[in-house]
Amino acid sequence: MTTSTRDGRNGAATLEQVAKVAGVSRATVSRVVNGSPKVSDDIRRAVEAAVAELGYVPNRAARSLVTRRSDSIGVVIAEPSGRLFTDPFFPRVLRGISAYLSSRDLQLVLLMPAAGETHRTADYLTAGHVDGALLVSLHDDDPLPGRIAEAGIPMVVSPRPRRPLAASYVDVDNAGGAHSAVAHLVGNGRRVVATIAGPQDMAPGVDRLTGYREALRDARLPSEPDLEAVADFTQEGGAVAMERLLKARPDIDAVFAASDQMAAGALSVLAASGRRVPEDVAIVGFDDSAVATTTSPALTSVRQPVEEMGEEMARLLVAAVERSDPAPRRVILATQLIRRASSAGRRVP
Amino acid sequence: MTTSTRDGRNGAATLEQVAKVAGVSRATVSRVVNGSPKVSDDIRRAVEAAVAELGYVPNRAARSLVTRRSDSIGVVIAEPSGRLFTDPFFPRVLRGISAYLSSRDLQLVLLMPAAGETHRTADYLTAGHVDGALLVSLHDDDPLPGRIAEAGIPMVVSPRPRRPLAASYVDVDNAGGAHSAVAHLVGNGRRVVATIAGPQDMAPGVDRLTGYREALRDARLPSEPDLEAVADFTQEGGAVAMERLLKARPDIDAVFAASDQMAAGALSVLAASGRRVPEDVAIVGFDDSAVATTTSPALTSVRQPVEEMGEEMARLLVAAVERSDPAPRRVILATQLIRRASSAGRRVP
Repeated sequence: MTTSTRDGRNGAATLEQVAKVAGVSRATVSRVVNGSPKVSDDIRRAVEAAVAELGYVPNRAARSLVTRRSDSIGVVIAEPSGRLFTDPFFPRVLRGISAYLSSRDLQLVLLMPAAGETHRTADYLTAGHVDGALLVSLHDDDPLPGRIAEAGIPMVVSPRPRRPLAASYVDVDNAGGAHSAVAHLVGNGRRVVATIAGPQDMAPGVDRLTGYREALRDARLPSEPDLEAVADFTQEGGAVAMERLLKARPDIDAVFAASDQMAAGALSVLAASGRRVPEDVAIVGFDDSAVATTTSPALTSVRQPVEEMGEEMARLLVAAVERSDPAPRRVILATQLIRRASSAGRRVP
Repeated sequence: MTTSTRDGRNGAATLEQVAKVAGVSRATVSRVVNGSPKVSDDIRRAVEAAVAELGYVPNRAARSLVTRRSDSIGVVIAEPSGRLFTDPFFPRVLRGISAYLSSRDLQLVLLMPAAGETHRTADYLTAGHVDGALLVSLHDDDPLPGRIAEAGIPMVVSPRPRRPLAASYVDVDNAGGAHSAVAHLVGNGRRVVATIAGPQDMAPGVDRLTGYREALRDARLPSEPDLEAVADFTQEGGAVAMERLLKARPDIDAVFAASDQMAAGALSVLAASGRRVPEDVAIVGFDDSAVATTTSPALTSVRQPVEEMGEEMARLLVAAVERSDPAPRRVILATQLIRRASSAGRRVP
């Protein structure tokens, strides 16, 4: 740990030296420094005198006034906690972030603001407790990026923000991935291809829907409103959307779901309706998460390198913290279609 | 937000007033205060002069030197991230903690140190970034409580620490809950009752095993080493333990598993071995988590009030932060046996 004097010079005084000059134990110095009430006034004064004499800045809050570093990075996931703990996307992205921060000996601090609590989270992030912020699963209406930008705190976001934002971001080729999924379904002879789209207030929801429509256009198939249902990336949402689609269009022979969780929900509804997958209806998900190999049948899915996204976000942020005023970077990672049983070619009777 | 002058008096100067005196925008003041490089030296000097004139303490790091409060609480879960995201215990306890902290307008800051990273987490917790710490799922050999105690930071832990620790804790009646589960199995006519115990380096693992043994003793049944297998609270661990138990004792007619996750793993192994539940083998879990109602058959389980544990931990900690030197409290919450199909009485042929 670096110690610093109040005027900004780096000093060599350590907690041990303060303890020696004050004639107390290291633990007692810690207690005084952290404001513990279990210390007598005499001892407190002796420690404070030693601190003043040695120029030791007693805690990280004080040190951060000088170095402006907390050696910590805030990660904000503003999703309902249900989704945080049920969608395997989040552990994966956290694993990537955590791997990079650990390699740099930086502390990961996770903040999960509920709806309406963004203001308090912004206070924390802009108060010197972290050196920078990673905003994961950013929605369009989130006021947090604006607050952080205003305060001049380095920040990296994901997915691609849909409003102008002077910050680096990391995302995958959402439109391209969706396009490859739908082109694959059409190539296997499917002609009534529906989609379960993600939330339309964030890039992955919007861009995957765009990719679906473009692939239909490229195949000279019409985009039809009753072949599109929007859900919230969850399994329950996917099931409800699938029910709605089947009611409007019982002739559907393929579905592109914008997440594996939604595809899993759709699979259960297809089974309950007596449709065979892939014989009657083919389905493709997005994520290639663990769920894709545990569904029955196993799920064809658009693989996105989630751990790598997390690592890349952390790498960009640490670079921004260390160099002053780096130009924002936009990193788009490629996707890959992983073929499994759920979209195998239609059997000819 | 309260503002304070450097000598500790509460001042009325706001960011807006600083902006007005300096003749710049609120955003520019934020940038200067947070050390952004995107500000000219002239503007920086003007803002610093205004700050000096008004006695405005520009950020929370500075303010915390005066108030020694960050209005934030650190929650530490030192489990492999796999378990954090697969065991429903953690979202539930976090929900309880979060509900109470939100009601007090305090920021929850989640720290998930990997093995070997406890030292960095201790640095963060003792550096003024949080007002207190909640340690969830504490294992015996964790050095964190010692570091936090030494620094005089208020702390509440769960489960019951098995070493002397001058801190409040919240736990459930683990031994009593296990006893009720085993007494129920014996009462239904089971005579060869095995247990899948939890980790033996933390109170829930040890105390639930103790409760199992005491219930057998009370029923005048012998405790036998080959009826006991220790696992790690996970589904995979429960499956491996069940395989071991069946190999050693094919005559087992009941199992008490110290977590629902382990019980779910055991159920799959029992099914694979051709044993019917509950006809051939009855099983009881612990937690009464969502998994208990989704297994086949539904799982009898010892309910522990997990959300309430989280709330109680947060309540005790905030009280300790607000009052100086409160006596540590030990809160033990009761458990309740919830009966479902997995332990129904043995059918008489």
